[in-house]
Amino acid sequence: MFVILVYDVNQKRVAKVLKKCRAYLTWVQNSVFEGEISKANFHKLKTELSRLIDPDEDSVIIYILRTTRYSERQIIGVEKGGFDNFL
Amino acid sequence: MFVILVYDVNQKRVAKVLKKCRAYLTWVQNSVFEGEISKANFHKLKTELSRLIDPDEDSVIIYILRTTRYSERQIIGVEKGGFDNFL
Repeated sequence: MFVILVYDVNQKRVAKVLKKCRAYLTWVQNSVFEGEISKANFHKLKTELSRLIDPDEDSVIIYILRTTRYSERQIIGVEKGGFDNFL
Repeated sequence: MFVILVYDVNQKRVAKVLKKCRAYLTWVQNSVFEGEISKANFHKLKTELSRLIDPDEDSVIIYILRTTRYSERQIIGVEKGGFDNFL
């Protein structure tokens, strides 16, 4: 399955959530991740994120795509993403 | 076409960008929007957003889906979204 994940997490917890997401997905930029992931790993990621976030304050949105990938990704403005230059 | 839009914009410009996105798409939550949009409106939205944001500081990521919709959207944590209770 191919997923797009966007989180909105309190600054206190953002480093842990970012690190967890990066273990499973590719960091696109800021709070956006994407990638191919197995069902087993997807379940693990969700369980682990549930433990890290505060469910009353934080949120994580995950889009599961029907096709293996989206058709196109466009960026307006600065390209903040990076794959190895963060954390 | 069906798009998912995520922005990361300086607080100074966020209200204008939010309002612009809401004119064309459905607000999911926080900085995430989605919706069916015509090619003409998509072009207009991009042009208008380009004028609103600071390209050196802000960014907008748009996923264009091949299929008309994603397969599924899951949310972990708080449901911050709303369609009529904001602005």
